[in-house]
Amino acid sequence: MRKLLVIGIGAGNPDHMTVQAINGLNCADVLFIPDKGAKKNDLADLRRQIWDRFVTNPKSRRVEFDVPVRAEPAPSYRSTVDDWHEAIAAIYEALIRDEIAKDGCGAFLIWGDPSLYDSALRILERVRLRGNVAFELEVIPGITAIQALAASHKMALNRIGDSVLVTTGRRLTQEGLADNAGSTVVMLDGKCAFNTLADKDVVIHWGAYLGTADEIILSGRIGDVGSEIERVREEARLQKGWIMDTYLLRKPGEPEE
Amino acid sequence: MRKLLVIGIGAGNPDHMTVQAINGLNCADVLFIPDKGAKKNDLADLRRQIWDRFVTNPKSRRVEFDVPVRAEPAPSYRSTVDDWHEAIAAIYEALIRDEIAKDGCGAFLIWGDPSLYDSALRILERVRLRGNVAFELEVIPGITAIQALAASHKMALNRIGDSVLVTTGRRLTQEGLADNAGSTVVMLDGKCAFNTLADKDVVIHWGAYLGTADEIILSGRIGDVGSEIERVREEARLQKGWIMDTYLLRKPGEPEE
Repeated sequence: MRKLLVIGIGAGNPDHMTVQAINGLNCADVLFIPDKGAKKNDLADLRRQIWDRFVTNPKSRRVEFDVPVRAEPAPSYRSTVDDWHEAIAAIYEALIRDEIAKDGCGAFLIWGDPSLYDSALRILERVRLRGNVAFELEVIPGITAIQALAASHKMALNRIGDSVLVTTGRRLTQEGLADNAGSTVVMLDGKCAFNTLADKDVVIHWGAYLGTADEIILSGRIGDVGSEIERVREEARLQKGWIMDTYLLRKPGEPEE
Repeated sequence: MRKLLVIGIGAGNPDHMTVQAINGLNCADVLFIPDKGAKKNDLADLRRQIWDRFVTNPKSRRVEFDVPVRAEPAPSYRSTVDDWHEAIAAIYEALIRDEIAKDGCGAFLIWGDPSLYDSALRILERVRLRGNVAFELEVIPGITAIQALAASHKMALNRIGDSVLVTTGRRLTQEGLADNAGSTVVMLDGKCAFNTLADKDVVIHWGAYLGTADEIILSGRIGDVGSEIERVREEARLQKGWIMDTYLLRKPGEPEE
């Protein structure tokens, strides 16, 4: 049977690669590399660095493929995602069928960790349910941007014995800061949702391009640094053509310990 | 100035080591290894495997040290932790002062990732505030048990666009399942807190000794597998003398996508 590896390659620093991920890369005959368009060329370069540095299997081939762009604006977030995933599932199915030998091994390279705000596992489940190609699946975890954020700020994500909510910019704007977690980590926020919070005493620990040479980190009360982060973020985005960022929020008035 | 590395060494599989962690190990002149007592000898063995396999710096020394046991039962969780951390801070301070040369480098090895339910960073902040030894700090992230859990179950932690709450067994028992997160990950649960939930239709994805040769994973409705997990967990704990486990909970009646 065909074997498929879904490999987390870390948050942007090639040194985030694990021994397991490096071994996985070198087991695969084919590496599938999504090409998400010219805008994110730095990411394509980083992926190429990982390839050049860690792939030692001489039989390894690289297959780049186009990922359809998600329809925007979305009348229903979930139904848009559904159509989008079905389109990608058809692409994955063709890649698996046409590019991997019947007893071969292919690998999908995923930024960060395959388990966090990434669709590859869900889409591969769709491919399996379509029933046209059979494959065995193995998942190799990777360092996430959340961990890179905490490492760069040299801090724990959780307060002692307390919960951490991992959420999206969209949900933070809709729901505000949750009461049941001492720390909130926000991902997928293109709009600086932290600046919509009424409480300007909330403390933010923010980071962009985490783990790379271009990393930027800032922290402080939202009232003090909220506008600065928005300005720095927009400048960096315009200069590089893309940005990836994440941040941790803590309510004021609660001791760190 | 002295340099200190706090290195995440992954969730139990030596192959979780990142290139950054391996390089960090080999930069340090001294590796500090907490000895948490004879009960967790398998963990000490795993740490030794990591040492034997990845440390190539001939000047590297290993220093094992005793970690004081936390007082139990606790009248106030926070004050008990406070006393405990102060005691450990004094130990860390002495290790840094006595074992690292004034321009040397030492490393603390941390299971999983230093940012998640680990006290090393908080305790080092105490050491810094005591003002008796100065040091520069660098944090190297590692694969967590949460990521190992998701990889072994071949699943995403989050539902599409939804939040994930990371919490403790104690909080799950006190607060029940949160409404603001489609997925809840529970750590530090010695008492199978999932079995205290009234809703037996909640789905659990459980794992113990994740990433190691002894890994056990189970999933299903709590009504179907809750008692089985408790039985399997207790058997494994008695047989090995220790257990580390974690799990993900999802409410029923919500589609996966």
